[in-house]
Parts: sequence; C-alpha cells; structure tokens
Amino acid sequence: MIKTRGYAAHNPTSPLTPFTFERREPGAHDVQIEILYCGICHTDLHQARNDWSGSIYPMVPGHEIVGRVTCVGGQVTKVKAGDYAGVGCMVDSCRHCSACNEGLEQYCEEGPTWTYNCKERGSEQLTFGGYSERIVVEERFAVKVPASLDLKAVAPLLCAGITTYSPLRHWKVGKGQKVGVIGLGGLGHMGVKFAKALGAQVVMITTSPAKGKDALRLGADEVLVSKDSAAMARQAGSFHFLLNTIPNPHDVNPYLALLKRDSTMVLVGALTALDPPPQGGSLILGRRHLAGSAIGGIPETQEMIDFCAAHQIVSDVEMVPMQAVNEAYERLVRNDVRYRFVIDMASLKQV
Amino acid sequence: MIKTRGYAAHNPTSPLTPFTFERREPGAHDVQIEILYCGICHTDLHQARNDWSGSIYPMVPGHEIVGRVTCVGGQVTKVKAGDYAGVGCMVDSCRHCSACNEGLEQYCEEGPTWTYNCKERGSEQLTFGGYSERIVVEERFAVKVPASLDLKAVAPLLCAGITTYSPLRHWKVGKGQKVGVIGLGGLGHMGVKFAKALGAQVVMITTSPAKGKDALRLGADEVLVSKDSAAMARQAGSFHFLLNTIPNPHDVNPYLALLKRDSTMVLVGALTALDPPPQGGSLILGRRHLAGSAIGGIPETQEMIDFCAAHQIVSDVEMVPMQAVNEAYERLVRNDVRYRFVIDMASLKQV
Repeated sequence: MIKTRGYAAHNPTSPLTPFTFERREPGAHDVQIEILYCGICHTDLHQARNDWSGSIYPMVPGHEIVGRVTCVGGQVTKVKAGDYAGVGCMVDSCRHCSACNEGLEQYCEEGPTWTYNCKERGSEQLTFGGYSERIVVEERFAVKVPASLDLKAVAPLLCAGITTYSPLRHWKVGKGQKVGVIGLGGLGHMGVKFAKALGAQVVMITTSPAKGKDALRLGADEVLVSKDSAAMARQAGSFHFLLNTIPNPHDVNPYLALLKRDSTMVLVGALTALDPPPQGGSLILGRRHLAGSAIGGIPETQEMIDFCAAHQIVSDVEMVPMQAVNEAYERLVRNDVRYRFVIDMASLKQV
Repeated sequence: MIKTRGYAAHNPTSPLTPFTFERREPGAHDVQIEILYCGICHTDLHQARNDWSGSIYPMVPGHEIVGRVTCVGGQVTKVKAGDYAGVGCMVDSCRHCSACNEGLEQYCEEGPTWTYNCKERGSEQLTFGGYSERIVVEERFAVKVPASLDLKAVAPLLCAGITTYSPLRHWKVGKGQKVGVIGLGGLGHMGVKFAKALGAQVVMITTSPAKGKDALRLGADEVLVSKDSAAMARQAGSFHFLLNTIPNPHDVNPYLALLKRDSTMVLVGALTALDPPPQGGSLILGRRHLAGSAIGGIPETQEMIDFCAAHQIVSDVEMVPMQAVNEAYERLVRNDVRYRFVIDMASLKQV
C-alpha cells in the first residue's frame, strides 16, 4: 500500500483537514499519477457537506485531476512514466453493459465507481479523490494530457469541460447553428468556448448583465439577459440548441420558449426538482425537447482533451493552495470565482 | 352565405344550445362537407367552459369531423362530390413559414387557424366547428376518407388519432421496440392500436388495474399498473419510447425512470404545469428526453387515414345524439366513456 497525504471532510459541518490514507500498489493495468493540480467542482462542496445525502466519511473530494505518470503496470499502453494524465469523475464501471461497451461508462447500468465518495467494486474500500498527492487508477479510466496545454487549467476539463463538451457533440452543435449557453460559471464558461470552437453562433444567456463583457471575451457572439423579457421575446423560437448549466432549481419555461421547433435544451447542472415546474405546453407547442446529459464517457473525454490541444482551449482558473480549500468553498457558495478554483498540489508538500 | 344549424356554447357556465349561423359559399379551392359525425374531444369541453381562458362566444365546438362532400370549387383536386372527407383541428395556416412548407401546419409560426374558437385569417369572422350540419374548408385542410372505414368511428381519428400517430411515426416506433402508452382514454386507446400496428411490443401503463383487460383487447401485449411500485421498478430502464397521454398535471418522474438511455417520453395531453415537477436528475441520468407533440400536419393526417384503411383501425366509440351533448360532457368529466363520444349529426335534422 502507498501512504498518501491529502485533505478530507470528516462530517458535514467541519472544515476539511489534513488526512493520510493508503492507495493500492499499481497492478498490471494501473497507472500511478503524481497529482499536480485538482479542480474544485461545486459537487465537491455538496458531497463534503452531505447536501445530497449519502455522503461517506472520511471523504477526500476532487475529480478534476491532472498529474504526472510516475509508474505504470506491465499491461499499460495508453501512457508511460513521465507522461501527463488526467482522471475525472469515474475510476471504474461494470465494463460489460451496453453503456460500457459503447464507451459511455457514465451511464453504466450497474453504476460507475465514482472517484470519491464511493466504494471500490466488490469491496468495502472507499475511493479517495484528487485532493491528495497521488492516485492509482486503471488505464481505462485515465486520459493522456498533451504537455502543450497549460496543465493547471486542464484540470477543470475533466469534469466541467467534458460535461459541456459531451452534449454539444452528442447533439451535433456546429456551423450554421445558433446556440445558447445558459449560466456563466464553471460549466458555462467552458460551454461558450466549446460551442464557439465548434463553429456555432454563441449567445451567452445570463441573469446578470454584469457578466456580459466577460462572456464576449470568452467567445460569445452576443449576450442575452434572461431577466429582460422584451429581449427574450425578440429571440423566441430562434435557437437550434440550448445548453443549460444552471445548477439550482429554476423556471425552464422562458428558456424553452427560445427554442426552434424540434430543438433541444439539455440540462447539465440542475439535478433536483425543476421548480417552478415546466408547462407541458412549452414542449408540445413546437415539439420541443428537454433532455439531460451527465459528464461524458472516457473515450469522449480523451477526444475532448485532444480537441482542446488542437484549439488551445483550457479553463479560466484561480489557483489556491490546498490549505485554503475551506475559504475557496466559502467563495464558491457566494459564486465568487472566475471560473474555477484549482488546487496547486505542490502546496501539500510544503506542510 | 349558407345558413347552418348547430349547437353552441354562449358562456362558460350554461349548457350548449341550438344555434344557427352562416358559412361562406365555397370558393375555387373550397370543399363543402355535409357533416355525418363529429367526435367529442376533451378540448371541446375545456374551451366551451373557458378552462384555458381566451374562449370566444358563441362557440360551436368540434374538430373531429367526418362527412360527405356535397360540392367542390373549380380548382379542387383532392376530393369530388360524393366522396367522404374529414376535417381536424385546423382550417388554415400562414402557408409560407418553414413549418407550413414542411406540411407541419400545426406548428405554423404565425399560428394555425383553429377549426373553432378562432378567427378566420385577416378577419373578425369566427370559425365554427363540427357540432353543425356542414362545414366549408379549403381542400388543403381536408383529408379524403375511404368508404371502406366505419365512418362514425373515423371521426376521432382527426384529433385523438393523429395526436398519437404523429409522435409514434416521428420517433420511428416499430419492430423490436418496447413502447409504453401511458393513460387509457380517447388518446391512449388509439396509441395502443397504432403502436401495435407499427410492430412494437406494447405495454399499456395505467393507474387502474380495472382497465387491464380492455387494454389487452385493444392490442396491448402487457399491462403495467403505475401504482405498483415494485412492478414499475422491475421495468425500469427497459422502454424505447413512452407516449404519455395523461391530460392532467402528474408526476412524470416514475415514468422517466422506465426509459432506456437516450430514449424519449412524449407528452401529448398535459398542457399545463407538470406538477410535482420533474427532477433534473431523471433526465441527466440516462441522457433521457422529455418532449411534446401537437396533433399532426395535414399530409401526415392523410397518411394516418390511409394507414387506418390498410390496417382496419378505427376508434372505439359511443354514439350520442346532438341533443345529448351536455350529458356527454358530464360523463366525460367523470371519465365515463370507452373511448370516444361521437355525435351522430343526423340527430340534428330531427329537431
């Protein structure tokens, strides 16, 4: 076993504190990664605080992991020692259901093994995430990261990136399409970058006029303030696709009205009740679709990383030391980050 | 002008009463139809009672119309005098938007002209529906009905029929698919017949075990009682498509859980708020779709009538005289009809 230092939550209300645990020795198909950077996803905070219930403690959060491969098992072909690699939300899945067979491990019919707050398959061993020195993972669940990318700004691609990239690709967003990205946060700012790089006309849809200038800098062609009902009415029925990144319950009806006939709004952030509820008529009139999408499979995550390398796309990040994670959580609650906190794991060594 | 007798609602609370009004003389593109039968749609009742607000009085309801063509304008080619013809929910549309150009007049971007409770395009003249002796309509908005079909049982096809046929075709329901039809009423009983004729394995999903036997008679392969949570859990993730005909607000989450990954539930009945609200997670987990569909375009309505002729499909109806329309409405409120009331318009002549 490999002694590993990290930070953990021990209950829903106390701050995260230093925590030492053990990782398995790498097997024939395993990759051992020295973690350089780990993004802070809003999910980390929800899970650490048991907001969705079902949290298991001690919990080492973190599923936006980038690092250097330090050793690989004898059967590993995807990466070699010295390469850079990433790990996202999953570290295992059943590998035999139709979803796994299609490389859509996030929809594994038996449920994927999450990078943290989960148990290893067929074991009581907890999984521990990226707020730590290193991780050992089967090569299937690692992706190769080109050294040409700014590694610290790659970390959020492993969750925020793939979560927005996957639906844009699945619904074939591209040239000649008017695409709205709803909500400008960790997910939304990646949605704008990807939709633009895919060739779409991109409209940033936000409640906050103050975010407009930044949206244009990120690549949006236009900003639509959702609280401006006249502006919303002018754009009714004009969008080919909407990527809805709002993480909280909200009224989807005004957004559905923006869709052209036979078009789709995809939810990637709002897991809980859509309250106030959608009107059936918002879907029936115009044969519109409301759909959802969860992160992305591992092959598509690799495709996204390669797409980012080709288009020089990374996340906009603010670096924090491991010791400042609790303050970062407080700022996250206040939406005070543009657009993703990333932990510099070198700070852990300085303790 | 052609003096025409019918029945009308004059305000939201009084019964429908005899009413005489005028139809236009048929123009070059018009078809004049002696109405033989008119189905009673739940919409008639909602509109007559101003349940959705915006009702215009006097109102002659009825948009499930079948009759005999008595004369046609000089430019008409679709039907000739002596033929049988049907008229559904629409009698006009803008005819130049993308929807109209694709034969999807129900999604006309300027709004279709509804068969009743509407105004003729560019005029203050009210449209009057099928609870009447005759109708004059442009041939584009009439469909030809083969004499081989039981005409009285054809009437409901013009709304209940096309409303269920269109989404089954649009989402390509057919052989090798497991399809659920939710709700066994005027729409649901047609959904079962069509889905079966299209080759699908059909599961009738109902709150009421008492309806099971009838569902099997209509062609369902299986009955799933939605209040049986163990039975629902056994079928989780197994449906390729769900046609949801429930007309009232209801919890869609248990139905969404029945869908396979990347599959769709289409609402055709519930126009108002989906309360309790859907969970975002019900869509995100499994990349599921919630969509809506409204009736069908005129070319597809003709296709459906021809499909019915080829497969000898009609609606299950209970005949009522025009004079009994108010009693029929009361029974409709109590769900006491299997599965559609149809007015025998010959009764109007006996007054």
